[in-house]
Amino acid sequence: MKGHLQGWPKDLIDLDQLTEEQITQVLDTAKAFKEVSEREIKKVPVLRGKLVVLFFHENSTRTRLSFETAAKRLSADTLAISSSGSSMSKGETLLDTARNILAMRPDALVIRHGAAGAPSFLGRRLPVPVLNAGDGSHAHPTQALLDLLTLREAKGSVRGLRVAIVGDIAHSRVARSDMTGLVKMGAEVRVAGPPSMLSPGLAEEYGVRVFTRAEPALEGADAVIMLRIQLERQRGSLFPGAREYSRVYGLDTARTRLLAPGAVVLHPGPVNQGVEMTPEVYESPGSLILEQVTNGVAVRMALLCLMVDPPESGALPAR
Amino acid sequence: MKGHLQGWPKDLIDLDQLTEEQITQVLDTAKAFKEVSEREIKKVPVLRGKLVVLFFHENSTRTRLSFETAAKRLSADTLAISSSGSSMSKGETLLDTARNILAMRPDALVIRHGAAGAPSFLGRRLPVPVLNAGDGSHAHPTQALLDLLTLREAKGSVRGLRVAIVGDIAHSRVARSDMTGLVKMGAEVRVAGPPSMLSPGLAEEYGVRVFTRAEPALEGADAVIMLRIQLERQRGSLFPGAREYSRVYGLDTARTRLLAPGAVVLHPGPVNQGVEMTPEVYESPGSLILEQVTNGVAVRMALLCLMVDPPESGALPAR
Amino acid sequence: MKGHLQGWPKDLIDLDQLTEEQITQVLDTAKAFKEVSEREIKKVPVLRGKLVVLFFHENSTRTRLSFETAAKRLSADTLAISSSGSSMSKGETLLDTARNILAMRPDALVIRHGAAGAPSFLGRRLPVPVLNAGDGSHAHPTQALLDLLTLREAKGSVRGLRVAIVGDIAHSRVARSDMTGLVKMGAEVRVAGPPSMLSPGLAEEYGVRVFTRAEPALEGADAVIMLRIQLERQRGSLFPGAREYSRVYGLDTARTRLLAPGAVVLHPGPVNQGVEMTPEVYESPGSLILEQVTNGVAVRMALLCLMVDPPESGALPAR
Repeated sequence: MKGHLQGWPKDLIDLDQLTEEQITQVLDTAKAFKEVSEREIKKVPVLRGKLVVLFFHENSTRTRLSFETAAKRLSADTLAISSSGSSMSKGETLLDTARNILAMRPDALVIRHGAAGAPSFLGRRLPVPVLNAGDGSHAHPTQALLDLLTLREAKGSVRGLRVAIVGDIAHSRVARSDMTGLVKMGAEVRVAGPPSMLSPGLAEEYGVRVFTRAEPALEGADAVIMLRIQLERQRGSLFPGAREYSRVYGLDTARTRLLAPGAVVLHPGPVNQGVEMTPEVYESPGSLILEQVTNGVAVRMALLCLMVDPPESGALPAR
Repeated sequence: MKGHLQGWPKDLIDLDQLTEEQITQVLDTAKAFKEVSEREIKKVPVLRGKLVVLFFHENSTRTRLSFETAAKRLSADTLAISSSGSSMSKGETLLDTARNILAMRPDALVIRHGAAGAPSFLGRRLPVPVLNAGDGSHAHPTQALLDLLTLREAKGSVRGLRVAIVGDIAHSRVARSDMTGLVKMGAEVRVAGPPSMLSPGLAEEYGVRVFTRAEPALEGADAVIMLRIQLERQRGSLFPGAREYSRVYGLDTARTRLLAPGAVVLHPGPVNQGVEMTPEVYESPGSLILEQVTNGVAVRMALLCLMVDPPESGALPAR
Repeated sequence: MKGHLQGWPKDLIDLDQLTEEQITQVLDTAKAFKEVSEREIKKVPVLRGKLVVLFFHENSTRTRLSFETAAKRLSADTLAISSSGSSMSKGETLLDTARNILAMRPDALVIRHGAAGAPSFLGRRLPVPVLNAGDGSHAHPTQALLDLLTLREAKGSVRGLRVAIVGDIAHSRVARSDMTGLVKMGAEVRVAGPPSMLSPGLAEEYGVRVFTRAEPALEGADAVIMLRIQLERQRGSLFPGAREYSRVYGLDTARTRLLAPGAVVLHPGPVNQGVEMTPEVYESPGSLILEQVTNGVAVRMALLCLMVDPPESGALPAR
């Protein structure tokens, strides 16, 4: 393995590990790779002969497909291991399973896990790069990076942008990583949600403004990130139902009028249309939800490249 | 994407979209690709760097493996998405799921779906080629094309062949696509099945002769296509059981004596031996059932090539 | 297909098919391939354009991943078919399913099956190489070969080594293949387990010494192979529980003092820590359990290479 980039962490667990310059490097590299996905031949030989293991301990078809596509576009081989329904981890600890995977000599381990801290735990114990593809309600750094790329592309820069994040802030790894990344890149962040979905100390911990109503967060915002409501997990526990949530926090055409002119709408997907936003907003020109998916592949290509086989110079990718 | 072949449809939904000349082009291309599967190196770089998504909303290991093998022999990358058991479509419409897949920039979408019309619906809304791998009881065009290739190889030409199709004509997408393709290519088609498995107007709609007994359909036929009885779906509803079906419609050695000399037997697989045909017929020299599987890979290579990256000239594949 | 190596069997069902010289050839080839997994570019073009089908009729994530990694490192394409949960074999016999797979023209069939004899049955009827990846309680030849490689690397040679195998000897395919391979390569083999896990005639059939207590088997042994206890299958039937088994047969630090100096510990994985061995033994310097995983990829690369595309000379792999 070549030497890592100056100061680049071995693992990517969350965005608090990266400096503003490093995040910019990821976004710049992603921008170059995004162009690859638009070519006739959508493939570069950057990771030819490398093996990327996708270890998904929690079901996530979208994120897995995005990483798998990213790895293949870099010419890497992939092994997808979903521990649910497999015999991978019978009677074994997570660490032992990971050490067994490692003994097959992969070049990177992408891990999605239901338990917060699992990727960090493995990263500290394994010699290969570990990329967090989402762990419990802790972090989802690649989602935050693709959100940053999408905002930068739409608005030129993240610095100074007013960004609202609406939904279950307290239990969302997307919200946590987004807040970390956005504030680091100079955005002004407001979060909004029902009191049961906000945790004390959010404002101080992340440097964001906190609202229990949607309107003041949306007022004048350049961008809004609507979080997915886990309808399947909520069954009446945290809020009085999807209809009520939608009425108070959902993004409809009336509420979009509060936003700044040219504001954009993001969502980590899949959208519950009619809950987090109306179909009209989903289909509106400001909705960048599918662009986020495209950017997800590009960001993951950039990270795999930077972490598995960092280039000597920044001239990436060669045409 | 290069310009499509003259008059070639963007999507392949059913054979009624193709002219006799276009079907012949598919079969000629498939014949050339079939030779690739017999080489030491079973691979051509035709779709190198392309991504083919196999979106199987209905379980079908065989068809998926055939498309996957075809794509890999053309050097394409593949992503297999089976929506059952995945988190792909939680709370999303089919179209939104497909748009999300599309945002990862695949070059073709192969779709198997339980609902008739799903591939057509997506094809009209998405910019990439959509290939129907079977939709409800509507159509299964690649199965019909591989049947046509198998018949042409065995008999020299499809024109003038007397072909019997026996089984559940009314509910079989294989029967529908076979009837369409065979009649278009000049075969004389007879269909036979119990009245509950025939629909009014079949004769007029497809230009076939309809029988409620097997014998008149088999009489003098050059080829017979035995349809699979969905034992798991039938539980006493449409007919009085597999044993009775087999006695009246199953192909045994006695009934094969009604066929023309040198007649051939096809079946889309998997065969319920002892129901649609006896083991003796299955193993007989005229049984081309495994040849159909081989031809399935070749036909799907041809279609992927013609639809994703149509060659300038017809000189395919290069040795 | 090129001519097979002199006297090399078409299929690998168990180690009794191979001579001592042939086993040595596999281990030598594996040693060369092992070096490939340590390179920057972990891939050689030996099986480029070949298709390896992994037909796993019984769940086994580890063995499948090992074969898949091995095939990809040789540049082969792979198709993984797991019959559980697939529609592959609905109403079909194993042979028919295999013939259908074969009609897609794979270059090798790797099969794991719950029924002893299934790989041999298919091998006799199909023209492609069939590799047994474990069949019932019959044989697991690639596991035995990776154990032999691990022992040879650790000890210089297998000849003359005193090797103890402890556990359910009677029902373990690993034990059977290990006994066959070890005795053939000149090791002195002792097996130990509770009487219910030993079968009469073991000593005569395999040329091993049989003990019902662990201590005499471990006494002075250069290596010990601890078998996995199938806790999920045992529910009180064969022995009075994991705790009792562990007390009498488990390897703890005290029992390792019976072994010869520098003795090594093997286990086919996954280890039930605290049952077959204590965590201390698992983590001890003599434990080669993860090295076995690494060697598993190398041995399977060697076998795929030797059986699918045997080289003219022994100069493999080219740098």
